[in-house]
Amino acid sequence: VSETKALWAGRFEQPIDEVAHRFSSSIAVDSKLWREDIRGSIAHARMLAEAGIIARDEAEQIIDGLTSIVSEIEIGVFQFDDSMEDVHLAIEQRLTEKIGAVGGKLHTGRSRNDQVALDERLYLKRAIPQIIDRAVDLISALLDQAETHVDTLMPGYTHVQRAQPVLLSHHLLAYVEMLGRDVERLRDCGSRLDRSPLGAAAFAGTSYPIDREAVANELGFSGTVANSIDAVSDRDYLIELASACSIIMMHLSRMAEELVLWSTTEFGFVTMSDAVTTGSSIMPQKKNPDMAELVRGKVGRVYGSLINLLTIMKGLPLAYNRDMQEDKAPMFEVVTTTHDSLEMMALVIRETTFDRDRMQQTTDQGYLTATELADYLVRKGIPFREAHYITGRAVAHAELREQPLQEMPLGILRSFSDKIEEDIYRFLDPATSVLEKRSPGSTNPEFVRNAIASWRTRLAVMAT
Amino acid sequence: VSETKALWAGRFEQPIDEVAHRFSSSIAVDSKLWREDIRGSIAHARMLAEAGIIARDEAEQIIDGLTSIVSEIEIGVFQFDDSMEDVHLAIEQRLTEKIGAVGGKLHTGRSRNDQVALDERLYLKRAIPQIIDRAVDLISALLDQAETHVDTLMPGYTHVQRAQPVLLSHHLLAYVEMLGRDVERLRDCGSRLDRSPLGAAAFAGTSYPIDREAVANELGFSGTVANSIDAVSDRDYLIELASACSIIMMHLSRMAEELVLWSTTEFGFVTMSDAVTTGSSIMPQKKNPDMAELVRGKVGRVYGSLINLLTIMKGLPLAYNRDMQEDKAPMFEVVTTTHDSLEMMALVIRETTFDRDRMQQTTDQGYLTATELADYLVRKGIPFREAHYITGRAVAHAELREQPLQEMPLGILRSFSDKIEEDIYRFLDPATSVLEKRSPGSTNPEFVRNAIASWRTRLAVMAT
Amino acid sequence: VSETKALWAGRFEQPIDEVAHRFSSSIAVDSKLWREDIRGSIAHARMLAEAGIIARDEAEQIIDGLTSIVSEIEIGVFQFDDSMEDVHLAIEQRLTEKIGAVGGKLHTGRSRNDQVALDERLYLKRAIPQIIDRAVDLISALLDQAETHVDTLMPGYTHVQRAQPVLLSHHLLAYVEMLGRDVERLRDCGSRLDRSPLGAAAFAGTSYPIDREAVANELGFSGTVANSIDAVSDRDYLIELASACSIIMMHLSRMAEELVLWSTTEFGFVTMSDAVTTGSSIMPQKKNPDMAELVRGKVGRVYGSLINLLTIMKGLPLAYNRDMQEDKAPMFEVVTTTHDSLEMMALVIRETTFDRDRMQQTTDQGYLTATELADYLVRKGIPFREAHYITGRAVAHAELREQPLQEMPLGILRSFSDKIEEDIYRFLDPATSVLEKRSPGSTNPEFVRNAIASWRTRLAVMAT
Amino acid sequence: VSETKALWAGRFEQPIDEVAHRFSSSIAVDSKLWREDIRGSIAHARMLAEAGIIARDEAEQIIDGLTSIVSEIEIGVFQFDDSMEDVHLAIEQRLTEKIGAVGGKLHTGRSRNDQVALDERLYLKRAIPQIIDRAVDLISALLDQAETHVDTLMPGYTHVQRAQPVLLSHHLLAYVEMLGRDVERLRDCGSRLDRSPLGAAAFAGTSYPIDREAVANELGFSGTVANSIDAVSDRDYLIELASACSIIMMHLSRMAEELVLWSTTEFGFVTMSDAVTTGSSIMPQKKNPDMAELVRGKVGRVYGSLINLLTIMKGLPLAYNRDMQEDKAPMFEVVTTTHDSLEMMALVIRETTFDRDRMQQTTDQGYLTATELADYLVRKGIPFREAHYITGRAVAHAELREQPLQEMPLGILRSFSDKIEEDIYRFLDPATSVLEKRSPGSTNPEFVRNAIASWRTRLAVMAT
Repeated sequence: VSETKALWAGRFEQPIDEVAHRFSSSIAVDSKLWREDIRGSIAHARMLAEAGIIARDEAEQIIDGLTSIVSEIEIGVFQFDDSMEDVHLAIEQRLTEKIGAVGGKLHTGRSRNDQVALDERLYLKRAIPQIIDRAVDLISALLDQAETHVDTLMPGYTHVQRAQPVLLSHHLLAYVEMLGRDVERLRDCGSRLDRSPLGAAAFAGTSYPIDREAVANELGFSGTVANSIDAVSDRDYLIELASACSIIMMHLSRMAEELVLWSTTEFGFVTMSDAVTTGSSIMPQKKNPDMAELVRGKVGRVYGSLINLLTIMKGLPLAYNRDMQEDKAPMFEVVTTTHDSLEMMALVIRETTFDRDRMQQTTDQGYLTATELADYLVRKGIPFREAHYITGRAVAHAELREQPLQEMPLGILRSFSDKIEEDIYRFLDPATSVLEKRSPGSTNPEFVRNAIASWRTRLAVMAT
Repeated sequence: VSETKALWAGRFEQPIDEVAHRFSSSIAVDSKLWREDIRGSIAHARMLAEAGIIARDEAEQIIDGLTSIVSEIEIGVFQFDDSMEDVHLAIEQRLTEKIGAVGGKLHTGRSRNDQVALDERLYLKRAIPQIIDRAVDLISALLDQAETHVDTLMPGYTHVQRAQPVLLSHHLLAYVEMLGRDVERLRDCGSRLDRSPLGAAAFAGTSYPIDREAVANELGFSGTVANSIDAVSDRDYLIELASACSIIMMHLSRMAEELVLWSTTEFGFVTMSDAVTTGSSIMPQKKNPDMAELVRGKVGRVYGSLINLLTIMKGLPLAYNRDMQEDKAPMFEVVTTTHDSLEMMALVIRETTFDRDRMQQTTDQGYLTATELADYLVRKGIPFREAHYITGRAVAHAELREQPLQEMPLGILRSFSDKIEEDIYRFLDPATSVLEKRSPGSTNPEFVRNAIASWRTRLAVMAT
Repeated sequence: VSETKALWAGRFEQPIDEVAHRFSSSIAVDSKLWREDIRGSIAHARMLAEAGIIARDEAEQIIDGLTSIVSEIEIGVFQFDDSMEDVHLAIEQRLTEKIGAVGGKLHTGRSRNDQVALDERLYLKRAIPQIIDRAVDLISALLDQAETHVDTLMPGYTHVQRAQPVLLSHHLLAYVEMLGRDVERLRDCGSRLDRSPLGAAAFAGTSYPIDREAVANELGFSGTVANSIDAVSDRDYLIELASACSIIMMHLSRMAEELVLWSTTEFGFVTMSDAVTTGSSIMPQKKNPDMAELVRGKVGRVYGSLINLLTIMKGLPLAYNRDMQEDKAPMFEVVTTTHDSLEMMALVIRETTFDRDRMQQTTDQGYLTATELADYLVRKGIPFREAHYITGRAVAHAELREQPLQEMPLGILRSFSDKIEEDIYRFLDPATSVLEKRSPGSTNPEFVRNAIASWRTRLAVMAT
Repeated sequence: VSETKALWAGRFEQPIDEVAHRFSSSIAVDSKLWREDIRGSIAHARMLAEAGIIARDEAEQIIDGLTSIVSEIEIGVFQFDDSMEDVHLAIEQRLTEKIGAVGGKLHTGRSRNDQVALDERLYLKRAIPQIIDRAVDLISALLDQAETHVDTLMPGYTHVQRAQPVLLSHHLLAYVEMLGRDVERLRDCGSRLDRSPLGAAAFAGTSYPIDREAVANELGFSGTVANSIDAVSDRDYLIELASACSIIMMHLSRMAEELVLWSTTEFGFVTMSDAVTTGSSIMPQKKNPDMAELVRGKVGRVYGSLINLLTIMKGLPLAYNRDMQEDKAPMFEVVTTTHDSLEMMALVIRETTFDRDRMQQTTDQGYLTATELADYLVRKGIPFREAHYITGRAVAHAELREQPLQEMPLGILRSFSDKIEEDIYRFLDPATSVLEKRSPGSTNPEFVRNAIASWRTRLAVMAT
């Protein structure tokens, strides 16, 4: 602490209180940014020398010092501990211990404010593509299952009531579409934050003739943040990411809910392998879909982090306020939870066996082609609302007899409407009914096959 | 209600309970979508005729009927009331009252599920550009003030402590940058939702040979949603919008906070005109920045709506569930609150007078160029951390004497370091110190002027 | 507007802007408080006369005027419209129109700040008992079903996997316990807010010799808020209520989820009557649990309102800030949504038929007494973890043969452990197994009967 | 992992995937509960022996083993690591390693479900009084400052505009009142959760003749949870705590906001000591109120955790679901953040010096007694609204001349109304005006002194 204090101690007569030190130290959280911090510092030092602000050999000493700190951290010689204030000061102090006073020159023309913003953006430039990769991998797992089950029939549900026959592949592709948009959102967010804030210094810029573009280029940014106050004051990129990840987790929670539902004895549509399920400590017969449940539960953490960030930033005047230090915990939580949940879900999908027969059987029982009957009647000239009424009565009759629609004799069917003829059974049998779907994007196997093929192509260019 | 019931009454023996009807009716909220609903229905009817699914004259009757309902609603002849279930059924029933049974043919090949999704997307296609226009107008108001105050000095703050001199124009431009990204986010969201879901029917598609592309084109969509289950199951576009608007409101809350702060007697930086302030019912001397406060308070509504939507969608299995009906209230709240807050803030900015003298005076008093002194010392070869220490002591000395840095005699300054020479005053005087800023994006008036000009150009193409 | 302006117009030269008026008017929301506002004003006027601050006949004129405004509002003669600023000013202006300048005396010794706080607290003193009544009614509906099904067996689930046999009544009583705590929370909140803020005036109190206790007594408060600044600055009571209601809605969402699940064809445990279900506009065979789904969806609105309120109040300096006007919409949303959802759920529970045979049948199939087997082995001296292992293997064996545990021959059972004897079947048969439960609070029918009886007694004193 | 697997491995053929193990392990979070877990196990073991379910010497072995594990953890011999699944299994396995198979008997008659719920409740029974102690300490710090400043005048603000003179002590007591209610809420929550869930086993209870009351007594609970399904299914107590803590943090954020505001150069009302402020790495003259800002920022974490918990529990069917494992991280975050923020704020309040002269001076300048003038006029028979108007014009006149109200000559004052006489100055001078306040709870020093005394008494019984 004493060394830390030295930085502003000129004006202070009393050391910071121990409780205050513990309360304000962020090292336990932000030490995860050490790689980004050192990368940024090396680029900054190099630029300072190029611009003639420090001497070339000073830059070399600094860069050598920083490089060896990387090794020290990796092999555990240098460790972060609670006595430190934050990762930035910890590294700078270590540097000064190693190379002496020249280490102090590293901070020329920058401030902790732009340094923190830089580290966060560098971290996200690395993290977002990793999340995208996991999303792409999950899409890939879904496409594999869709391919395997391109013709598997299942009951489509609304209100969790059996509604119409669909192909399992078509259902899985709905999630592929959602994840496709999720990837787009991540990309948009990634492009928007791909600007280097370094050079904003505290917030007003600096009188050193620094070269912001050079640093940005070296660090792989596509440009610089245009306004120095904006550069250190805003965290909209974190909130945008937290939003995109909240939507991803929302999508995953729905997938998880269905897996939990489908793995009940009552539905019996899927079996997940032992690799992704667990047993009970007291009920030996249980095989629990824990991984799906955990994904569903973890949505709370990401929603919570989003609210955390939004709350922190509400009503903060410009430029930097210390409240903003609290942005790092939710940043890491959002990234890690979303990444791991996507990874987990891809594994779960791969380790899931869909019970084709059970799904088919269930589809045959559920009066799922009632809509087809109604539409058939309409095509025979009956107004839709009347056709709907006729169909309702036919279904009620069938239900009383516990008889599938496709097994009702023609005579009975015709008692509800004499427009009904032999060809009705093509529409009443779930297996043939999907072939009758004609609207693009519908559950017709031909459309579904094309969609799979088109997604395969898209995936090839999507991976980062 | 009775007529509503008729739609599925074939199978039901008992009417819906009155409490349940009230609980489930959405007409009070979704009637705002009537224009979208009718526009969508007209396009659908036209396509049904083009595709030969209904007769041309049937389509004409339907379209005429719908068109006259528009007039009926506008002049108040047809009014929505609580006995109705939702806007879609209300309009369809009115149509059937007017043109008889042929009205029932309108529902051919579609379902309330894709109809609702269509109405929402049509509404957002109209609303998002309006929000963008309001954001652009606010940017424009900020640019005007920045232009007026391109050279006005003010103290830049961190931790709400005076820190370094900046130009008011530079500070205002920080918000312009934030709003610029806000507009981008709205655009991204707008493009992503610009797909017609119509033709998904309930969720599986339809056996009618409908032309989804034709309807999409007529309604101005850039394409169709690819997967019919996805089309009716997801609301990610609403959540993405709510996120983008939450970030906008967060930005506005910060602007509002500063206006409240700056209009205190203590700061005294701004006066807002009577047009956007109010008095007190008991304290006659008060002139309250109510509009800014309300904008700041309304951030809660948008954050709350975001959580509302995220909560609704958590863990919902596919495809449609009735929970999703609850998405409309937060959708309207997000759109209206954000739109009106942007509009209000543009007016407030225009009605605000910045007190140039007071800002200048405050800048002169605040030891704001201490950093410049430290940097000066560094350029004279003193390591940054040492320079920082020297400066700290000089400031402490000046503070004791209540003397601005720029008024400290050279002799005193040199007692802290003999590297200090006459040219130091160029850096210590706030007015000249900003001219010394050399990093792109800094508070140098030249950079700021260029930024204003460049934003003017950008705005010209930004308006919708 | 012009009249409204008159209140502080002495110092203002320009009227408020039309956009600003619309933006800041709260009449559309707060007019719901008109009864409370008038009740509070009548009590205040009476006290002013008692304390000799205004004349008795002035008080009478004011009270008569206010009383006749009640009638005017009830019969629609006086209507609130958008030109008004808020309910308080609207009523006061109407009063002055009716009785002249003496109406202005009503505002003596109070301010809009304490008046708003009073109206809110009066409203909540009325609303909270109504919510409690609805919760009590739902408890009552659950107890009725529990009584009917005191012996109905069902599979208890963890991870939505069948786990152990329980009584349906026992399951329903779990919700009764939750709702019991919900009622306690509402009561705690209700007591805490049961203090009159009137007399705090703007925030500093008043130099009039008002009698705060007298007004509090007349309005039925149990006391007054102790500190005048606190009285107008805080809204913790609203947040506490929103939290208590969020927990209620969370509980209801779980009940709703189970009803949706149990009404699937796959589970088939319940049928809800036509009074609380709806059909599909396109799928005539559907019978959708819409009311349960809507309750589940509406949880989002209450969570969202909680976040709305928490956000508004974050970081607001004392005393009143205009941001706080935004508290009313979430207040009404929380109260109405929770009240109506409880009411709806009580109706749903009453209109639900539990399928005793299906539940029993499912219980018999599910290896649900595996734990009993394990415990049996432990009682025979086998360490728990080993007993668990043996049971796991026995279940695996039974599952392969699709045979319920209770139907496995003794010989086979003994092949897993020779400690197993004839008496094992008492534990393996679900129907007898619940009788073997001995821990208080367990699913033993005797405990459950007692719990029902004890809740009946508790309910009698619980109703408000 | 292998040993962990053994628990349900009887039925599983394949080990859990490594990714799934990492994803589902909670040891990094829940190991904080080790004390509670061992305490609960010891009580359970003792009861098992008392009830004759296990032998006395078995219980002794178990208790000795558990006791020595306490030492092992404390001195670091036994350490938790990522290979473990959770704290409960880690300790049980360690026990079995130490004392052999008899360790397995500990799990007799209980399940991880009731064990987890027990550990949480035990933890909260310890944590809540600690939070209360910190709140009480903050109240105490506020009372000390209020006592020191019982007569210090300051401008009371609404809309952050100077409004009326108040005593600083009165202002500080507003926070005391808020914190007083916060403590009540914590107590209510603490009482409500003070029930032992142990004995619920998985959720249905157990056939062992366990003594739930005995365990509850030994662990210091005031009773047992009545319904076994409820005991393991709900987490309302966590949400209630998170709500109470959210309100505390909201209150602290307001206090923090005021401290930030008041420590600006512009307000200049307070100076915080070096012990609780920090400097800037680049601006040596800065003295930043970081601790207050961090408290304000940390409100986000608690709001976020509240939403996290509410989201997790939304729509979960009974009884236990693995989602609920995710409740522990927010539980610890809520407890730690709130505890530390209260502790920090007490320190900040103690380390803050209020600048009596500056506050007094500011009070004198602000037309703060305008209301008094208006009230004075009313007492002279002028209707309130007219008095208000007259006062408004008088203030406008004074403002133009930059003259405090109390320094306006009587002649000028009388030009606005001839009812004004010499005694007006008693009301216009802030220092005497507070003495004129007569409503209980107002800023009259007599009321304030009584309030301080009464809070001192209350505090004596409040500390836990």
